[in-house]
Amino acid sequence: MEKLLISSPWAEVEPLFNQKREVVKEAGLWGLALPEAYGGQGLTLAEFGRVSEVLGRTPGGHYVFGCQAPDMGNMELLVHAGTEAQRERFLQPLARGEVRSCFAMTEPEHAGSNPTWMSTTAAREGNEYVINGHKWFITAAEGAAFAVVMAVTDPDAESRHARASQIIVPLDTPGFHIERNISVMGEAHGGWNSHAEVWFEDVRVPVENLIGEEGKGFALAQLRLGPGRIHHCMRWIGICERAFDIMCSRAARREVAPGRHLGGQGMVQAWIAESRAEINAARLMVLETAHKIDNEGIYAARDEISLIKFFAAEVLMRVLDRALQTLGGLGMSDDTPIAYWYRHERASRIYDGPDEVHKMSVARRILRRYQ
Amino acid sequence: MEKLLISSPWAEVEPLFNQKREVVKEAGLWGLALPEAYGGQGLTLAEFGRVSEVLGRTPGGHYVFGCQAPDMGNMELLVHAGTEAQRERFLQPLARGEVRSCFAMTEPEHAGSNPTWMSTTAAREGNEYVINGHKWFITAAEGAAFAVVMAVTDPDAESRHARASQIIVPLDTPGFHIERNISVMGEAHGGWNSHAEVWFEDVRVPVENLIGEEGKGFALAQLRLGPGRIHHCMRWIGICERAFDIMCSRAARREVAPGRHLGGQGMVQAWIAESRAEINAARLMVLETAHKIDNEGIYAARDEISLIKFFAAEVLMRVLDRALQTLGGLGMSDDTPIAYWYRHERASRIYDGPDEVHKMSVARRILRRYQ
Amino acid sequence: MEKLLISSPWAEVEPLFNQKREVVKEAGLWGLALPEAYGGQGLTLAEFGRVSEVLGRTPGGHYVFGCQAPDMGNMELLVHAGTEAQRERFLQPLARGEVRSCFAMTEPEHAGSNPTWMSTTAAREGNEYVINGHKWFITAAEGAAFAVVMAVTDPDAESRHARASQIIVPLDTPGFHIERNISVMGEAHGGWNSHAEVWFEDVRVPVENLIGEEGKGFALAQLRLGPGRIHHCMRWIGICERAFDIMCSRAARREVAPGRHLGGQGMVQAWIAESRAEINAARLMVLETAHKIDNEGIYAARDEISLIKFFAAEVLMRVLDRALQTLGGLGMSDDTPIAYWYRHERASRIYDGPDEVHKMSVARRILRRYQ
Amino acid sequence: MEKLLISSPWAEVEPLFNQKREVVKEAGLWGLALPEAYGGQGLTLAEFGRVSEVLGRTPGGHYVFGCQAPDMGNMELLVHAGTEAQRERFLQPLARGEVRSCFAMTEPEHAGSNPTWMSTTAAREGNEYVINGHKWFITAAEGAAFAVVMAVTDPDAESRHARASQIIVPLDTPGFHIERNISVMGEAHGGWNSHAEVWFEDVRVPVENLIGEEGKGFALAQLRLGPGRIHHCMRWIGICERAFDIMCSRAARREVAPGRHLGGQGMVQAWIAESRAEINAARLMVLETAHKIDNEGIYAARDEISLIKFFAAEVLMRVLDRALQTLGGLGMSDDTPIAYWYRHERASRIYDGPDEVHKMSVARRILRRYQ
Repeated sequence: MEKLLISSPWAEVEPLFNQKREVVKEAGLWGLALPEAYGGQGLTLAEFGRVSEVLGRTPGGHYVFGCQAPDMGNMELLVHAGTEAQRERFLQPLARGEVRSCFAMTEPEHAGSNPTWMSTTAAREGNEYVINGHKWFITAAEGAAFAVVMAVTDPDAESRHARASQIIVPLDTPGFHIERNISVMGEAHGGWNSHAEVWFEDVRVPVENLIGEEGKGFALAQLRLGPGRIHHCMRWIGICERAFDIMCSRAARREVAPGRHLGGQGMVQAWIAESRAEINAARLMVLETAHKIDNEGIYAARDEISLIKFFAAEVLMRVLDRALQTLGGLGMSDDTPIAYWYRHERASRIYDGPDEVHKMSVARRILRRYQ
Repeated sequence: MEKLLISSPWAEVEPLFNQKREVVKEAGLWGLALPEAYGGQGLTLAEFGRVSEVLGRTPGGHYVFGCQAPDMGNMELLVHAGTEAQRERFLQPLARGEVRSCFAMTEPEHAGSNPTWMSTTAAREGNEYVINGHKWFITAAEGAAFAVVMAVTDPDAESRHARASQIIVPLDTPGFHIERNISVMGEAHGGWNSHAEVWFEDVRVPVENLIGEEGKGFALAQLRLGPGRIHHCMRWIGICERAFDIMCSRAARREVAPGRHLGGQGMVQAWIAESRAEINAARLMVLETAHKIDNEGIYAARDEISLIKFFAAEVLMRVLDRALQTLGGLGMSDDTPIAYWYRHERASRIYDGPDEVHKMSVARRILRRYQ
Repeated sequence: MEKLLISSPWAEVEPLFNQKREVVKEAGLWGLALPEAYGGQGLTLAEFGRVSEVLGRTPGGHYVFGCQAPDMGNMELLVHAGTEAQRERFLQPLARGEVRSCFAMTEPEHAGSNPTWMSTTAAREGNEYVINGHKWFITAAEGAAFAVVMAVTDPDAESRHARASQIIVPLDTPGFHIERNISVMGEAHGGWNSHAEVWFEDVRVPVENLIGEEGKGFALAQLRLGPGRIHHCMRWIGICERAFDIMCSRAARREVAPGRHLGGQGMVQAWIAESRAEINAARLMVLETAHKIDNEGIYAARDEISLIKFFAAEVLMRVLDRALQTLGGLGMSDDTPIAYWYRHERASRIYDGPDEVHKMSVARRILRRYQ
Repeated sequence: MEKLLISSPWAEVEPLFNQKREVVKEAGLWGLALPEAYGGQGLTLAEFGRVSEVLGRTPGGHYVFGCQAPDMGNMELLVHAGTEAQRERFLQPLARGEVRSCFAMTEPEHAGSNPTWMSTTAAREGNEYVINGHKWFITAAEGAAFAVVMAVTDPDAESRHARASQIIVPLDTPGFHIERNISVMGEAHGGWNSHAEVWFEDVRVPVENLIGEEGKGFALAQLRLGPGRIHHCMRWIGICERAFDIMCSRAARREVAPGRHLGGQGMVQAWIAESRAEINAARLMVLETAHKIDNEGIYAARDEISLIKFFAAEVLMRVLDRALQTLGGLGMSDDTPIAYWYRHERASRIYDGPDEVHKMSVARRILRRYQ
């Protein structure tokens, strides 16, 4: 068996993915989570959650169906807060899958756990913003048509939540450059599945590229997290289900001695039962949260959004770890997708706020009710 | 504050509980889970689950509302499989709260994890069964009016699941005696909250006391487990919620230094967030299972029933452990109910089949689908 | 089998323990950890650690051999810092086992995790200290001849570590009274194994009762913790070994089906192997720490002392939990000592500073080396 | 910073490693664990354990000092059981670092957890063995001068432990070929750090290539495991210490807000304290086991050898996981060695017998003493 497609250089992966995208479009399944106006089907979050689980079973699922991060988040952002001109110029080609985009928020000098603390600035000069800054872990930057950039527009705003704005930066703008694709878990291929370290040096964009109002960058980022969390968490559930299948298949069929199967061992049985329980639990929690967001909005569901973040990520890593151990040497190899997920989905406990930050913030909100 | 009521001798506890039962009856909230024909309100399992959570917040809740184990299970059994005469004589007084009952299954000589393996026999002689055997952990035996006894009626049945029957034994029948109330976690008071070791020596009861058909003892026991699991698990969720409240109150208010609260510590925050997530997860799983039993029956839900058994019991013990640790010395004391639950609810991982047995059996069923 | 002796009222336990003390004295094994001048054998801490493990196998072991907490700590304190007169009057009868003592530090109003924060005061008036305060979890107070009391003698001392002193208070001094023996895990018998809530109201003692210098209370308390930790941790190792024996005996002999033993189950095997590894690890760490204290002193070993506190306590609770689960219903009963230890040794993670406080303080010291 | 050297193609890595080997040889530190007769220093296992910890701090440490797996195990094997001719031809160049070797045991068709079950055969024909079989996870096969091959020489031996032998196969022998370097965690470079799938098809070697006696293959493999375990476990401790340093450096210096460091967070403090305790515990256990092997031999220490296998591997993975989480995105990147170890050392819980197999076998031996 060959090395996993998804880990291969993007130049090898992209053509195949694009072929499959055509199949999806012909089947009328493209961009399911988008409003109908943009070629989607206007699924609710809870509905799309169920889809996201299925797509998550294969590493390229979301890409092939046109609802991959970080593009999906950028599309939701522009649907929600973009101007007509922005939608025309940036959203439409993205929604059609003609271009890719990225989201530039994290900075190497500042802890990602503190999203209001950043050094990148966008200074207004006439009808332009002049952007300067250093960002990293910018997923899918290489080859992207544009970035949505978080930058400080008002460093003196009293509230630290009102300092930053989100601005669209076409990546062919002079002053932008990619320093490197960061080698992540041994892989540094470019393309959709890469993570760049980038610089903005006197990058000038028209003020029309501001998304929403000035100073609303943090609020827009919060908005992004709700649906994004559901997408991710349900994708993780899909990974869990696939890993569970692979683990159970192996346990049911692998002989440890003539006529005696791996699945007859008590410790393996414990892993299977515990995984089944935890995956069921995680799915119910995420879908419940999706319903709450659909019905009551993101603010009302912010505790649940934090809870599913770390709960589902921890379940994901435990299930992958058990599957890998059940497979033994095979689990270390790239003959199954387990090893790919084991190393790359480890990031699930880190991105969009490390688990610990979510635990701290949800606990503080809970404790306020007891004071 | 005084030692917890529930740990006191039953002779001191019972009068107070009986007073409170009167309040419940007057409020029309008595025996909620029973069919209307027996004075109840015919709640579905999912509906009663929600009630059971609320009652679980206090150790005597279920007793005071007339839906306590093991009487509830015996009532469900007689509603489902009892004869009219059995219902008249045994169910009606039980449903009115006039008597108590017990369920005699576990034997000291055989692992409780293997319910088809027992030594107690019920030999048919004329119109009577003659019962001989040794049982223990017979909850609430002391003072009970009758026991439902699992005994082997056909030791030669080909299927080991067809050997035993369930028979009603009034406890004033000659030949029955209680050897001791087992000291459990330091407490050996009698009454509802006790656990007896008992002997049946040539105990004779009329064949009319057989419940259902001969050889169906195991099938009836399985039937008992489904709703019983929901009752228990939702009771545990209630305990979790109460423990969570106590933990959060303490964390929010206890100063560790002037002006600095326990709840400001990261490790305590992690316990709070993780407990919140796990309790939510457990509740969703149990209610989902209740719905499945209501809609598809116990057999269809037997995987889920096993899953919630160990998942909810493990959550319960973790939440209690964190609450106790948050309270420190106070948590060890009986000034709060935490220590009572910590020691006595440890049994949740053991009774009705140890967690490990459920993990093994659910894993085996899952693995069969992969062969 | 009867309810465990150690859980019985002290009036029933004490005579039997005293008989056994005579046997120990005749065998020349009394008070092993004391210097020879006080009838002991001057064992090093590492040597006594090995003894403490053996004594720990039974709940009354340390008491019967005359080296039980809290008396042992008081004896070490007086050997180290007492005056000749104090040794004559208080240490000698204690060392001979004629009286008992207690150590009064924890206050209900202040977190035990912050030992420099207390309200009890000892105001100097002429040749006397006048003590006022409220303490709880005063182990063995009922029936004790005297208490060593931590009280603030200089509330204005610049360093909060220099505010308190340790003072000997005979418990027949007017103004002292026991409010209650706190019900701990369902048990509130008095005597050695009890935990009192007490008041000091204008309790007057001569200034000669000051131990060491004024303001050195905190330093003396720290001194107490080093050897005390070794005693406790090795006692826990003894409990672990006994629990391990009970677990393995049961697993090896208990049939789960005809001819199939509990110990054949993979999950039970995992518990046995993991327990064996963890107990070995804990013992090595504690003995290594004892050697370091013997050779380099308590200050040099303070990181290790914190590490063994939480590491050994967590191992203890895990081993007890696995043993209990292996025993099933029997484990919940008092037919073995497992349930006693399960409930009462839960305090191991709390007393002498909760595990979390030790984790925080050792981490902070480590981090200082990386700044 | 560049992608980690160790993950680069071997052709890029090897020249640099060879340069460093010269430095080591000049310093007189080459091949420390070998007997003096082979250019080593005859360190005891406990002594070499301490060296192995230091070398483990960097991924190429053991290679550069000439004591890397699998060559070290092959050298020990030939020192112990090789003929003079075998030592002359195979051991000497290996000991001088002129060639590399591999060990061919695991087969894709059989669980590695059952080392007596294999399909590869070595049929005696005249003065030759004719070897046929399929092996995988043959570390360092590509470029190796020879393999030590486990093959069945007597399929009918009564004891399954007497069926196989170990035979030296020069890898330029016709009939041997490498099917592929297995992609492991996304990497499939060849050379020392690779893992091949290979075929033996009518591979003929002279009977002089048999190591020890026919039928002793399993016994020799067991012999290999004792010292090999110490080497590996102490290497893991070295990794743990390096990861701990990286974690603490980051925690002490990374600001999460102006003036507030990551290391001030309670959850991070818990990771640091728990890691410190677990690393200390693992080191003590491994060194204790090394002493026991040195003094009493491998057989006497076989329980301890199993215990350190899983205990140290679990500590390793927990420490790496905490370090990675502390570093956040940086931990996912190859800017530190954490991500390399996180993905590749996951194999520590699998090779040389999965942890679960060691748990089962040590538990079974323990339980036999209780029957």
